[in-house]
Amino acid sequence: MFDMKLAQRAAENLKRVREKKPLIHNITNYVVMNYTANALLSCGASPVMAHADEEVEEMVSLAGALVLNIGTLTPHWVEAMLRAGKRANALKVPVVLDPVGSGATRLRTESAMRLTRELSIGVVRGNASEVLSLGRKETRTKGVDSLHSVEEAEDTAIALAKELKTTLAITGKVDLVTDGERICRVHNGHEMMGSVTGTGCTATVMIGAFLAVDPHPVEATTTALAYFGLAGEKAATQTKTPGSYQIALLDALFSIDGDQLKEGARIEVIR
Amino acid sequence: MFDMKLAQRAAENLKRVREKKPLIHNITNYVVMNYTANALLSCGASPVMAHADEEVEEMVSLAGALVLNIGTLTPHWVEAMLRAGKRANALKVPVVLDPVGSGATRLRTESAMRLTRELSIGVVRGNASEVLSLGRKETRTKGVDSLHSVEEAEDTAIALAKELKTTLAITGKVDLVTDGERICRVHNGHEMMGSVTGTGCTATVMIGAFLAVDPHPVEATTTALAYFGLAGEKAATQTKTPGSYQIALLDALFSIDGDQLKEGARIEVIR
Amino acid sequence: MFDMKLAQRAAENLKRVREKKPLIHNITNYVVMNYTANALLSCGASPVMAHADEEVEEMVSLAGALVLNIGTLTPHWVEAMLRAGKRANALKVPVVLDPVGSGATRLRTESAMRLTRELSIGVVRGNASEVLSLGRKETRTKGVDSLHSVEEAEDTAIALAKELKTTLAITGKVDLVTDGERICRVHNGHEMMGSVTGTGCTATVMIGAFLAVDPHPVEATTTALAYFGLAGEKAATQTKTPGSYQIALLDALFSIDGDQLKEGARIEVIR
Repeated sequence: MFDMKLAQRAAENLKRVREKKPLIHNITNYVVMNYTANALLSCGASPVMAHADEEVEEMVSLAGALVLNIGTLTPHWVEAMLRAGKRANALKVPVVLDPVGSGATRLRTESAMRLTRELSIGVVRGNASEVLSLGRKETRTKGVDSLHSVEEAEDTAIALAKELKTTLAITGKVDLVTDGERICRVHNGHEMMGSVTGTGCTATVMIGAFLAVDPHPVEATTTALAYFGLAGEKAATQTKTPGSYQIALLDALFSIDGDQLKEGARIEVIR
Repeated sequence: MFDMKLAQRAAENLKRVREKKPLIHNITNYVVMNYTANALLSCGASPVMAHADEEVEEMVSLAGALVLNIGTLTPHWVEAMLRAGKRANALKVPVVLDPVGSGATRLRTESAMRLTRELSIGVVRGNASEVLSLGRKETRTKGVDSLHSVEEAEDTAIALAKELKTTLAITGKVDLVTDGERICRVHNGHEMMGSVTGTGCTATVMIGAFLAVDPHPVEATTTALAYFGLAGEKAATQTKTPGSYQIALLDALFSIDGDQLKEGARIEVIR
Repeated sequence: MFDMKLAQRAAENLKRVREKKPLIHNITNYVVMNYTANALLSCGASPVMAHADEEVEEMVSLAGALVLNIGTLTPHWVEAMLRAGKRANALKVPVVLDPVGSGATRLRTESAMRLTRELSIGVVRGNASEVLSLGRKETRTKGVDSLHSVEEAEDTAIALAKELKTTLAITGKVDLVTDGERICRVHNGHEMMGSVTGTGCTATVMIGAFLAVDPHPVEATTTALAYFGLAGEKAATQTKTPGSYQIALLDALFSIDGDQLKEGARIEVIR
């Protein structure tokens, strides 16, 4: 059932991140800046957070990937994201978007739509409500929590990926990854991940790190999500309470080696 | 000495938070955004942080409570707080204010005063200096640390609660809660809580979560503080050093169940 | 080889921080605000973060030291840093600068240069690339990671300290501290410190705390770095994974006492 080639590729991507230590440029929300920086360090990448109009173009030119995250957004930050994203596009630096809370407010929905339409985005990762909201303004999100299941969202997501010419990743109990043609499901993960703020955002930066070493969006995304999900499973063997779980998750990102990832990755290729 | 009905109510409020998972909208300081979001998740609520003028009114309309916290303040954020607060008032969404550092600078004192006077605030929680500064511009605060004891502040707090038509919670060794008529003291807590940044802010968001399920300010506040203090006590049985204590505190918020809270709550009704 | 007087002084400085609990005013980056606040609390100091133009002068007048950190910079924050710094200079409150990412973008390099030239800075702490960039605009930094070793930077740093009339601390495997005349090396520390985001920024706030009780920059800096490095060593005896390491480091800052520091400080005086 699970794809052995992608499991092997996950191990190779992880090894490459640890060797190359790609700089990941984040324009992201205040809540998760520290945690996602630590997660990137734990997986082997090198994080930098920079959002000033005056420096985002220079910073992204040093980067292996650009991560845009619209949690705690203001209009001024959207401009910085567009500026950084356009430069990234020109330099062929891959761009990942996390539309946090899209569907909850017009500012978020419209900003996420604008980013997907004015930039060439390699991968968008969100929960079902957030991703669906990119196609329909009427989709609602409860703050940053999904009101839809991954399964409900699947057909729309496939059509939307085609329309937006991007790869969409909807994370949930089982993650869906599709570029409109190909469809994969990643079965790694643990429900404890939902008890820590910013685990969705952390999945997104992992995709950024893997995209920096693997230019194929579906492959980079499925392997990154398998790695992150496996870390979530490993952390859950250590603790079942959220404070210590958030710490165990960073430890697991650091500890998992290529062999464990090859063994543990559960990526299903639907088509 | 301790009130059994309020101990019972604490257990019921905690249960309701875990069932309803109320969205708590925070406009808060950068230092504690991650920690208070994790604390809200650990207790069972759903946090969202949003401060843009363009979205606060929409976001608060989805929320069970609004938490305003003036640490790391700028004038622009005060405007967003007023906008969100007025909408919350119109929608009868309860509002909690944490006047972090009020008394230390004119910006903070005047902003806190303005918020208490232009909005209908359900509960204000601060240390003694911060709360006293709401009544007198001359009160001084050393940064974010109190220069006054809860006991010294009691009489003034009772008068001030009446004047501001709000419920005041002054946290310290023993917490004081008063709406000007009723006076309660909460005896839960542990001195280790002072060794972690943002535990005061975390007490405030717990009040927000409980207010979202219990519209009576004195009851919601005393029960939330008993719950948070009990978590502090439980965490101190695990560790006596601040790094691991901050993690143990999140774990304790998650682990405490209704029976433990009913058993452990030490709320004293003075009048 | 190691200086016994400075080891003794480290113990005395730590004791003084714990007795006086100096308020350390930080204008710093979003990524590390929470961690450095907790580190300051763990060592015994009292942190406050405040960046609004309207309040930085008042806040710094209450402080024992001012820490300026240019990570996640915008031009507006530079103005607040200059305003706070000028007031600190007028009041003889010592100022510490962390030029995070200087050399990576013009905004950061020029802002760091401007701060060192318009303010009287007691101590600048950075990695080798960041510190070198203060003297030469052509120095490059990979995001926030150094492209140079401490050894390579030594001669330039000595000349630069003289030129800027400040004390420079370059942290790395062995830390260099020089005011242009005196040269010291601090041999404490552990490579795990590089696996946690913001440990450099945390070294900087420790220098701020020690400067608040010891007005001699070389002495305050070497003793603070010995203390912080020793905490890093102690934490590494507890764990070798980055999530739990970041927590163990806070615990170690809290746990180390004067005798342990006197025993463990490895400060070498070159001249």
